[in-house]
Formats: sequence, C-alpha cells, structure tokens
Amino acid sequence: MRTPLLLINFKTYIEATGKKSIDLAKIAEQVATEQGANIAVAPQFSDLKPVSEAVDIPVFSQHIDPIRPGAYTGHILAEAVRSAGADGTLVNHSERRIKVSEIEETLEIARSAELVTIVCANTAGVGAAVAALDPDMIAIEPPELIGTGVAVSKAQPELITRTIARIRNVNHTVNILCGAGVSYAEDVTSALTLGTDGVLVASSVVKNKDPNKLLQEMADAMLDYGTLRLPRSAPTSN
Amino acid sequence: MRTPLLLINFKTYIEATGKKSIDLAKIAEQVATEQGANIAVAPQFSDLKPVSEAVDIPVFSQHIDPIRPGAYTGHILAEAVRSAGADGTLVNHSERRIKVSEIEETLEIARSAELVTIVCANTAGVGAAVAALDPDMIAIEPPELIGTGVAVSKAQPELITRTIARIRNVNHTVNILCGAGVSYAEDVTSALTLGTDGVLVASSVVKNKDPNKLLQEMADAMLDYGTLRLPRSAPTSN
Amino acid sequence: MRTPLLLINFKTYIEATGKKSIDLAKIAEQVATEQGANIAVAPQFSDLKPVSEAVDIPVFSQHIDPIRPGAYTGHILAEAVRSAGADGTLVNHSERRIKVSEIEETLEIARSAELVTIVCANTAGVGAAVAALDPDMIAIEPPELIGTGVAVSKAQPELITRTIARIRNVNHTVNILCGAGVSYAEDVTSALTLGTDGVLVASSVVKNKDPNKLLQEMADAMLDYGTLRLPRSAPTSN
Amino acid sequence: MRTPLLLINFKTYIEATGKKSIDLAKIAEQVATEQGANIAVAPQFSDLKPVSEAVDIPVFSQHIDPIRPGAYTGHILAEAVRSAGADGTLVNHSERRIKVSEIEETLEIARSAELVTIVCANTAGVGAAVAALDPDMIAIEPPELIGTGVAVSKAQPELITRTIARIRNVNHTVNILCGAGVSYAEDVTSALTLGTDGVLVASSVVKNKDPNKLLQEMADAMLDYGTLRLPRSAPTSN
Repeated sequence: MRTPLLLINFKTYIEATGKKSIDLAKIAEQVATEQGANIAVAPQFSDLKPVSEAVDIPVFSQHIDPIRPGAYTGHILAEAVRSAGADGTLVNHSERRIKVSEIEETLEIARSAELVTIVCANTAGVGAAVAALDPDMIAIEPPELIGTGVAVSKAQPELITRTIARIRNVNHTVNILCGAGVSYAEDVTSALTLGTDGVLVASSVVKNKDPNKLLQEMADAMLDYGTLRLPRSAPTSN
Repeated sequence: MRTPLLLINFKTYIEATGKKSIDLAKIAEQVATEQGANIAVAPQFSDLKPVSEAVDIPVFSQHIDPIRPGAYTGHILAEAVRSAGADGTLVNHSERRIKVSEIEETLEIARSAELVTIVCANTAGVGAAVAALDPDMIAIEPPELIGTGVAVSKAQPELITRTIARIRNVNHTVNILCGAGVSYAEDVTSALTLGTDGVLVASSVVKNKDPNKLLQEMADAMLDYGTLRLPRSAPTSN
Repeated sequence: MRTPLLLINFKTYIEATGKKSIDLAKIAEQVATEQGANIAVAPQFSDLKPVSEAVDIPVFSQHIDPIRPGAYTGHILAEAVRSAGADGTLVNHSERRIKVSEIEETLEIARSAELVTIVCANTAGVGAAVAALDPDMIAIEPPELIGTGVAVSKAQPELITRTIARIRNVNHTVNILCGAGVSYAEDVTSALTLGTDGVLVASSVVKNKDPNKLLQEMADAMLDYGTLRLPRSAPTSN
Repeated sequence: MRTPLLLINFKTYIEATGKKSIDLAKIAEQVATEQGANIAVAPQFSDLKPVSEAVDIPVFSQHIDPIRPGAYTGHILAEAVRSAGADGTLVNHSERRIKVSEIEETLEIARSAELVTIVCANTAGVGAAVAALDPDMIAIEPPELIGTGVAVSKAQPELITRTIARIRNVNHTVNILCGAGVSYAEDVTSALTLGTDGVLVASSVVKNKDPNKLLQEMADAMLDYGTLRLPRSAPTSN
C-alpha cells in the first residue's frame, strides 16, 4: 500500500450507504487520479462489491471476523470481502474492538486472503501491543476525539509522537497512520509532520457538503508534504 | 412472506461465497419458479447486492445490528442491507446470538426498514420468550442438530410440538419455521406435518453436489403438503 | 421470597465495598427487624460471605454465569455464591445484560442451586419476553432513569402499568418489582400502588449520608401500603 | 512476587468451591511453609475472603473488570478483591479473554489497587503483544493443552522457548510462567529448565485425590531447580 495514505471510513453513515457510497467513492477516485494521491475508501460490507466495481482506488472492509469458511451465520469472512473486491481491512476499530487473540487470528487470516491490514489502536500502549503482531499498518485513534472535528494531530501531538516511539520499540517497519477528528488539510500536514504515513478520516468527509473540495485540499497537503520531505528520504547522491 | 417457506442459509460456506452465491441463488430461483414454491436465500452481507440483482426470489440478510445510521464501524445497518436488496433478516441465529434487549431493538429497526424478521430460538423457552417480542417468524433450531444431517423434525418431533405450544401461549399469529439438520424432502414433510410454516436449510443444500435435485424434492414436499392441507385450511363451502 | 420486597443493589460502589458492605447490610437488617419489613441486599461477589454471615436478611448475588462446575476461570458459579450464603441472584441487570438463551440457562441453574431469581427488564417488551421463561421475579428498570434520582414509578408510571399488563399476558404468577431512580419513600408507595411487589434501590441508599433514615421511611411506606391493601387481598370471612 | 512461583488456579471446580477452597488452600500453605516454596492460590471471587483469612500465602483473583468504583452491577472491582485479601489477579485467562484495550486498562487499575498482574497468553504472538503492556508476569497457556494432563513444557517445548524469545524482544524484565497440562513434578522441572519463572496448575492439583503429595513433589522440583541454578545466577565471589 503506497504511502502517504488517506483512508475514508464510511462507517454506517446514511450519507455513505447504498448508492451514495458509490457517489462518494467516485469523488475520492477523481481526486486521487487528478492529483496522484493515494486515497482509499472503506464502505459497508454490503457496498463493497458495487463500490469496488465502480472505482479503481483501494477499497477496505471495515472489519473481518477471525473465522475460516464454515458454519458462521452473520459473520464477515475474509474470502467474501476479498471476493467482493476488498484490498484490505480495518481491524480492531474502536467501534468494533476485539480480543488480542482475535487480532492475531484475524491478521493471519487476512494475510492468507491477501488483504492489507490496518489495526486500530486507541492508546500508545495498545499501539505497541498490536505492533508485536506485525500488521501492515497501525492507525492511532484516540476514541475521545472521534467525530469531534478536533484532530488528534493538533489536540494531542505528543500522543502521536509517544505512540510512534512505543511502536518503534517493538516494530521498525510497520506503517503508522493516525485518525480521530482529522477535519482539515492542515490536520493532514501536522499528522505527516509528526511522522505518520497517513490519516484516517470519516465524518469530516462523509458528512461534508463538498467532500470533493476537502479531499482536494487534503490531497494537496499530502503531496506538498511528500515534496518537502523528498530531499530527506531520497537525497541526491553526489 | 408467503408460506410454506424454505429458506437457504448460505452461512459463510465457501461453496456459497462470491460468484458461487449467485449460482446457488439462481438454482433456488429456478426451482421456485418452475414449481411455484416459496424459496428464499440468505447470502453473506457482501453478496446481498449481486444476489438480489441476479434473482427474483426473497433475499435475507443473516443478521443486522441494533443500530441506527451513525458512527458504527464494522456494523450491519438495516438500511444498508435493505438498500442492497434484502427483503428480510435472520435475528439471533444460534451462531450469532444477541441479548434479549438487542432482539427487541433489532425488531423495531427491521420494521422501520421494512425487513421481514425471522428470530431463531434454540429451545422452546427461548421460542416463547422471543414470541413475546412479536417478530414476523420464529425459527426453532436446536444447535446440537445443526449440520448433523439429522433433522430436528425427525430426531426431536416433540421439541417442535412443545415449542409450538409454548409459542402459541404467547403469540397466536407468528409464523413458525424449523431448522437444524433438515436434509431430505421427508424432513420438510415432517416439519410441516408437525405444524410449522416452513424450514431453514443450510449445509444439506449448500454443500450438495446436486442442490437442484434436492431443492426440487423439497419443493415437491412443500407443495404436496400444501395440497393435502388445503381442505382443512380452506374448506369448500357447499 | 416474602413481598413487598425492597432490594438494595450495592453495585460496585466504593461506599458498599469490603467492610462497608457489612456496615450497610447491618443497617438494612436493623430496619428490617425493627419494622418487620422484607429488605434484602445484593453486595459484590467477594462480599457475599462476610455479609451473609453478618446479617440475617436475604442476600442476593448481582449475577451468576450460565455455567456448571468446571474449567471456567473468572466466572460466577451458582454453587459458589450459594455456598457463600446467597439466597438469590439478579439476572440480566441492565449493567450486565446477557443473551436470551443464557437467561434461560441461568434460571435453570439457579433453580437447581435453590437461588431465587430476579430477572431485570429494561422495557415492557423485554419484561414480557423474560416472563415466558418463568423466573421468580421480574424487575422493571428503564436504564435511562438509573441513578437519576427520578423514580420510574413517578416519571413513567404508564411504563410500569403497561409492562405489568404485557407480563401478565404471558405469566400470571411472577412477582414484579420496579427500579431505576427510586429515591424517596413516596417512590416506594407509588411503585406498590401501580401494582408492583416491591422495589430495587441502589445509589439513593448506598450513597446516602443517612441510609438508616431513608430505609426506615421506605419500610414505613411498604408497611403502610401493606396495611391499606390488606382488606383487598385478605378480606374478613364473615 | 518471589519466583519460582507455583500458582494453583481453582477455576470453578466444585472440588475447590466454598469450604473446600479453604481446605485446598491450607494444603498449599502447608507445603509452601514446610518446603519454603512460593505457592499461591486463585480461588473464586466469593471464596477470596475466607481463603485469604485462612492462609498466609499469596492469593490471586481469577479476573478483574476494567472498571473503577461505580454503577457496574455484577462486575469485579479491583478494590473489592483487594479488600477481600487478594494480592494479585489473573488477566485475560483463555477462559476469560478480553479486548486488548481492556487488558491495558485492567493493568493500570490493578497497579493502583496494588495487585500483582499475571496476563495469560495463548500464543507466542499474544505473549509478545501483552509484553508491550508491561504486566508483572505473563503466563503462556496454549488452550488446546489445558486440562489434558499433557504439559506444554513437554508437548511443545519449542512453543515455550519461542514465546520467551518473542516476549524478550519487547520486554526484558517481565516474569514468565507457563501453564496448560502441568501435571507432574517433572513438568515443573522442564518448565523451569526452559527458562520460565514458574507454572500455573489447575485440574491436576484441584481434582487430585492426594494434592498434598503432588504439591510436595512439585515444590521439591522447584527447589531442586533453584539449587542447581544457584551457581549460575549468584556465583560466590572468592
């Protein structure tokens, strides 16, 4: 998964359910394409297939259950979301927390179904704990900021840096995102400046009257930061 | 929902995931159409939309969460499955049991989303309890028989009659189905003879090498029973 | 269990933990003895034994798990709370809700351990549902009023009468209590007047600076009501 | 907590419920005293107080809930088990697994109540994850061996060494125990030899006709191992 990444979590907002999930995904795709930014969407399970057929950007499931195919009525099977077009999945979102043994099983199952995994962590400690299970990405999301419009990267920058430090003690390669309250382009900039590889957004985009404009600004922020950062990460060699 | 009803629960069987869910749903539709039987299917969430677009028989969700639209990552929203084409939903399947207060909320939410509800009950007592909540249908499914190939209507006919009696003490109108181990046409006949309004099937159909043949036989059993029963329920008036 | 009953739920309030649970239980016992009222207490699991050894009034567990003796680390065994002196148990309190199948199992297990059962119901529908499972008592407790100081019998008297009506459709003999916000003697009177057999109280007594006085007033209200009601329930026989 | 430690988990076995929990704890205390071994017991919640009053060895709770004092009916409060005499608590036992965020909260709460924490881990990955949360001890317990009579240290020695290695990558100081199937003195020896600081036992002791004898042998094994190991860990300096 290319970084920096901006992932839009559709949750179960009515503004991103059914036909509207396709509309929003298309807006995300348009911005991604026009600006060359990596924008992904996480619609509801029943919208995974129509969304993944409608757009050519990464599509995430919001959750999968730690199960193999079998007699599990009402569960979320990795193979089913993969077959519906999902490229990855959120795991342990603070609105859908699971047991630590289930996170490990879920990661193993996701790997065998070739799904990229983003494990959510509500605290620095949980971030370090899940880092030991070696997911593809970890998303730091203090639940008290979710939906507030106050970005974690602005309200608690030290939480981000502390969490990154604790994660790096355990795992040197995992990508780190941050979420909760990310509402403006400047929140994206501050998240990247603090050392993350991207952001999770939800209500600020999903419930926005002009999501196209906000996504363009956020994409710009990602690209600006990428350009500025370039000399440091890829110095010229002479 | 017309009765007798035969509902095929696809669970998370790989034989009914993704493209295969459409194949199986089309077989069910063909039998339903050719024989005039009421056959419904309950695919996984991510297959609801493609299945409901591919066939013209009732489609059920396997579960919905007791939530309204909002910030519920990884949950199943009634409006989302309705928008994906579901006509109804299972509730409290023994592989996805919920709290009694959640059953009540789920029924209310399903009603406002115009979803037919089938609440599963593992015992006679649970059947009576959920009957007090007035769902559209109750499915009696002793979990110890699920997947055994031994039909509840054959192995424990007294469980069916006792459960019907306890349900009727509380609720005179709710439709009653039975499931667990229903594998042959004769199981359908015995279920209807015991006084139920239909059956739930799963592995016997989903994992069958020739589901078309089995469904035809089961549909025949439903129609035969309907014909036999006709004089009793609608006597000629001369 | 003699009615009317006043049950004090100690919850996990620090004011009723450890040694303080014994102090409060002794106050309850004193009022019960002096006034001839039936007052029971529900301390935490680890306080069951010292409380039941210290007082001679009914003692309830706050919950038991639907398990038989065996390998269940960290669970609440009916035989253990019985052996610690419990006479009964709460089931499905709104702060500890369980699945409908678990309520049925819990009732069966409580019966075989000779524990009186009080199943809590947050709504009229849930009241009717659990009535079908035939517990000894049902406690109506709308969670939105718990801890508010506003009694359900005052704020929502129609909820009480409607719930009683729905319960009686299903079960003619179960005792009915009500709780949530019961804070004054007059709340007890109104609860009994509405047709209940007693009340559940918690914070209003546990966090009271003078629980003795409040309990005396509540006991008076129970006795007054009992006296007034006497002619109706036990007419003289001439 | 002194090591090596032998902790007897009483679970909800009827052989260690009520008065019998005191009998078994006294046997453990006698062996601990006579042989100078560190033996601890984990009785049920309702037996914590009588057991801790009857014996002078460490007493553990089998679980605590991640709550502070308040309105939590039917929950396990750290202060309550502490007040009942508990010195520590098991956390996340495979028969009582909790979410990763709950483990972190539980550890924080246990610390403020001065309870020693033993977090159970069913796999090497889970061991590494919980190590990041810095509990006092981690107990490796593959659930598939629990109650089998086949010790993890014998059946899967490589699981122990691999888990220790993964834990040490994350946490250099946490004590490591192992459990599941530990049934004989030699299982204790092999556990210690593999590098653990002690063992968890349950059915092999609780359901034993002569627990005194088995505990003596296990205590001997601990002491023998300690003596043998002494030169390495504390060489004389002349």
